[in-house]
Amino acid sequence: MIDLLSNIDSPQALKHISDESLKQLSNEIRKFLIENVSKTGGHLASNLGIVELTLAMHSIFNTPKDRIIWDVGHQSYVHKLLTGRKDLFHTLRQYKGLSGFPKRCESDHDCFETGHSSTSISAALGIAKARDLNKEDYSVIALIGDGALTGGMSFEALNHAGHMNTDIIVILNDNEMSISENVGGLSKYLNRLRSDPKYFKVKDDVEYFLNKIPAVGKAMYKTAGKAKDSLKYFLVPGIIFEELGFTYLGPVNGHDIKELKVVLKRAKNIKGPVFIHVLTKKGKGYSYAEKNPDKFHGIGAFEIESGNVIGSNKKKPSYSTIFGKTIVDLAKKDTSIVAITAAMPSGTGLNDFAATYPNRFFDVGIAEQHAVTFCAGLASNGCKPIFAVYSTFLQRAYDQILHDVCLQNLPVIFCIDRSGLVGNDGETHHGVFDLSFLSHIPNMTIMAPKDGHELSDMMRFATTLNTPVAIRYPRGTNDDFCKTTQEPIQSIKSEVLLNGKDVCLIACGKMVQIAYEAAEKLQSENIFATVINARFIKPLDEETILSVCSNINHIITLEDNVIIGGFGSQILELFERKKIIDKNVALLGLPDQFIAHGNTDELFREYEIDVLGVMNQIRKMINQ
Amino acid sequence: MIDLLSNIDSPQALKHISDESLKQLSNEIRKFLIENVSKTGGHLASNLGIVELTLAMHSIFNTPKDRIIWDVGHQSYVHKLLTGRKDLFHTLRQYKGLSGFPKRCESDHDCFETGHSSTSISAALGIAKARDLNKEDYSVIALIGDGALTGGMSFEALNHAGHMNTDIIVILNDNEMSISENVGGLSKYLNRLRSDPKYFKVKDDVEYFLNKIPAVGKAMYKTAGKAKDSLKYFLVPGIIFEELGFTYLGPVNGHDIKELKVVLKRAKNIKGPVFIHVLTKKGKGYSYAEKNPDKFHGIGAFEIESGNVIGSNKKKPSYSTIFGKTIVDLAKKDTSIVAITAAMPSGTGLNDFAATYPNRFFDVGIAEQHAVTFCAGLASNGCKPIFAVYSTFLQRAYDQILHDVCLQNLPVIFCIDRSGLVGNDGETHHGVFDLSFLSHIPNMTIMAPKDGHELSDMMRFATTLNTPVAIRYPRGTNDDFCKTTQEPIQSIKSEVLLNGKDVCLIACGKMVQIAYEAAEKLQSENIFATVINARFIKPLDEETILSVCSNINHIITLEDNVIIGGFGSQILELFERKKIIDKNVALLGLPDQFIAHGNTDELFREYEIDVLGVMNQIRKMINQ
Repeated sequence: MIDLLSNIDSPQALKHISDESLKQLSNEIRKFLIENVSKTGGHLASNLGIVELTLAMHSIFNTPKDRIIWDVGHQSYVHKLLTGRKDLFHTLRQYKGLSGFPKRCESDHDCFETGHSSTSISAALGIAKARDLNKEDYSVIALIGDGALTGGMSFEALNHAGHMNTDIIVILNDNEMSISENVGGLSKYLNRLRSDPKYFKVKDDVEYFLNKIPAVGKAMYKTAGKAKDSLKYFLVPGIIFEELGFTYLGPVNGHDIKELKVVLKRAKNIKGPVFIHVLTKKGKGYSYAEKNPDKFHGIGAFEIESGNVIGSNKKKPSYSTIFGKTIVDLAKKDTSIVAITAAMPSGTGLNDFAATYPNRFFDVGIAEQHAVTFCAGLASNGCKPIFAVYSTFLQRAYDQILHDVCLQNLPVIFCIDRSGLVGNDGETHHGVFDLSFLSHIPNMTIMAPKDGHELSDMMRFATTLNTPVAIRYPRGTNDDFCKTTQEPIQSIKSEVLLNGKDVCLIACGKMVQIAYEAAEKLQSENIFATVINARFIKPLDEETILSVCSNINHIITLEDNVIIGGFGSQILELFERKKIIDKNVALLGLPDQFIAHGNTDELFREYEIDVLGVMNQIRKMINQ
Repeated sequence: MIDLLSNIDSPQALKHISDESLKQLSNEIRKFLIENVSKTGGHLASNLGIVELTLAMHSIFNTPKDRIIWDVGHQSYVHKLLTGRKDLFHTLRQYKGLSGFPKRCESDHDCFETGHSSTSISAALGIAKARDLNKEDYSVIALIGDGALTGGMSFEALNHAGHMNTDIIVILNDNEMSISENVGGLSKYLNRLRSDPKYFKVKDDVEYFLNKIPAVGKAMYKTAGKAKDSLKYFLVPGIIFEELGFTYLGPVNGHDIKELKVVLKRAKNIKGPVFIHVLTKKGKGYSYAEKNPDKFHGIGAFEIESGNVIGSNKKKPSYSTIFGKTIVDLAKKDTSIVAITAAMPSGTGLNDFAATYPNRFFDVGIAEQHAVTFCAGLASNGCKPIFAVYSTFLQRAYDQILHDVCLQNLPVIFCIDRSGLVGNDGETHHGVFDLSFLSHIPNMTIMAPKDGHELSDMMRFATTLNTPVAIRYPRGTNDDFCKTTQEPIQSIKSEVLLNGKDVCLIACGKMVQIAYEAAEKLQSENIFATVINARFIKPLDEETILSVCSNINHIITLEDNVIIGGFGSQILELFERKKIIDKNVALLGLPDQFIAHGNTDELFREYEIDVLGVMNQIRKMINQ
């Protein structure tokens, strides 16, 4: 058989290919994806699910003139393959390699960048309105997953689109999943549409029926009176979308290229907003991914034959695992503890809790804003909600943290996973802003553990406070580097790990170990550093910090957060308040720019906050 | 006639009052509201609209045992009146007086605080779930306006509520308004439900019809086949809410107490989530407010007889007015400029623009998240979107600013009105966090004008940049205090307004005038201050600031933002980067707490950032 894929350098090449060949091509693409992602790691299951859909879109539409926005962007692999990036695929998500998400700088075919969910309809509507104002003519398509559709801003955009009546096409990639199984009334509704293949046919049947007995048909209309629109409820599936002003088409089999092409062609010619409901199977074509789409959502390198993740037999538990174990332990003793996730039960480590305490576990779907205010409601009424969330996604609930939790000083605990640099997911997923967007919110306590043991202890301590608390910790495994017996945290106290006269390193979270190792290594150069594990970013343990710093002129703060408004900034403000001048202070952390994807070790090195980088910066300061 | 209102000290008193007396009471309440708010100012129209609804709610439900959440909270005046706060009403929204929003510290009847919209269903669901876990038994009611319903988190909460099947009651106060007229597909949908009073009756009619001709009825069912659920579409209004899992009741006349009591009683006994659609008239009972609900949404003191605002003949234009005039001027020359508002065309000053350039004007409804990503879409496609928004509401779009605008470095201009202290709306509405939540976002340029002239000039300058820009300015009138001819802003340059050897005041925005006046006054005490108008918060005009400060030891920064992560913090970080030590730096601004309501003059005095406060702080520093 001819290898079709190697001859596809642009979507243009698809236009003259038969449906039969497209079918062959989809098999080749699946093979290519499985082989490549098994080496690089990445988002496999969702991309396997939309091979035919992507082929059909690129057959009917003409990017870059037509615009496709991918929601979320990790389902753009097939699109990348078809738009001239096949030969770079071995660099996927690697340092300086191909991004795992759409990037405008990579290709003209990537018109809008997407990493967080539920943004596509808003972006599409903006692009479409600009097109109208510029008097241009092309299609704008938002491809959105059923999980992303539950995010509130999707609804805001649907609502606005219904009002504007501009030509846009929203394609719902309905695979009954966000990352885990999807949640909510809307999901149940989609399920009803989905579960009855004859649903779409009802319209014709009823019209036929009414025509057969015109008298009755008329009587029906007459009885309904002015409410004749309500007849539509009987005739049209997808009524929610129709009511919001969209033309609803579907449901369509997302693995039937021919059917997909028919419906896309039809949509292209309809005026006003169109909503196409496409049914796909996540992981399609690779049995392990079909059976376990959650595991193969975002996965590391794996063995194709067995589906086993390579090197997954690691001995060290991840922070997420430690979080998951600790919350189960705490919940045993304190029945007021409840756990909340926004569609991330597995990623955040809540699976055990969900199984052990199903009544106290709430997965609200991709809906971070609601999650936080829901927590506020729970907390206002005697519960101790723990919201486990990735740092980058918590950004979406900034106002709710401030306005609903902190203003009322409610005891909601935010366990913020994937803080700092997350690695290969890159720009849209690094959790490097949380210290900056949380520190200025009144009533908030912020902690960062130096290791897994401390994470557990901070969680315990947080449940004893009756105020909002955030605990931020990084992606990945915990090294438990400080094995010395520790006193349980009883108050806002930092700990001094090492005493040295030349420089004081004040570090938080993951940076404590790096500071410690740098300090140890510099002893052989006769540079002696004090190392403080801050533990608390807010409020600061002012007493310890001021007392330790009083005898040391060189002070370095360390954080895996942007420097602006972050941990070091709190130290500067402390010194300002206390009128500590004459100190030589340096803030180490991340610069004022978005950080690309790559292995975290490479990124720490690039930004000089790995052990060697920190050693250099200490030397530089001392020798100045 | 007996004065009923004066005898009502708690909702309990309503239980034994006849519907006729409740009607009289509603008249008395309207009179009371008009008289009081005409003196204190406040949110009048929305409260006049829900007098009967509030009376009916307190007749059927028993707060504080039952919980009512007000969305948004400014429609809680009648509730406050009925829950023992009548005698404090003359202090409404005044410094240390009654808040214009629900406050848990004011009354047990206020169970959850609300100032930003669309939070109530999330909070209600949290409270209801906590109730279930505690095995308690009471009703939880979210009262939400049709404007607030378009906010995405309302949808997130409806979706989750449909999934959870917990007993909660959502009451839609549908007055066809947010603050201005409501927007969107949902609004059109509600309008269809609303416009046909017979709609609710259809169900009975159809059932009757089907019973009359059973053979046909049967055939209908048979034809529909498995899709028998779709028959519901024909029978049930409010299908969107039904499909999401709610029992829909309505629409109900919101000014008919008897009807309201019937439907509330019915809702109380229904299991699972209930959605009641209540139709009200904003401003009801006061002709000026009925005719002009937008003007009487939030209003200052006014003359009851004429409806005229007292002291509204002010000569100085507000910042909003200057913004509104400038954007029309700029749009004349630059056709790529478009304007966006989230349901605030009038408040932000966009009415003229909307009238002049209707095609380039977009009111997206209460939907700040969508607004920002919609702007990103427009900007990615050649437009220059200007989003006019209140500082406090922009908080809701933090992630979209970061992830959708700044990450792609798109030229969206944020004109941020009501920055700093807004006065009587208080805690939930002060714009005192924007510098802190914007400064750490890469690619963002932030400016603050010292007066209206500079606002115009900054807007012009912003349109020449091809990057994200934020311009923040305060509520209220502009004093145009610096009338000296100014060079147009051509680059990132601050301006030195006064030279003095003793202390350098680096101020931004509104604080420039205060710093200037303080400096002028201190000259008579032989204290000579330099005053820098920073203009740019990010990036800083490092050159000017460093050069001016090089000869001055005392440096004071001034901002009407929280100090943490704000303007002064940027100056500290600049000095750290440049290794400027030995300076005595003091940051003036707002402390790490939520700021209550009150006249802005009083608040500036309380936090010692008025002219006298600043003078004191300068003296203190110099004399230390």
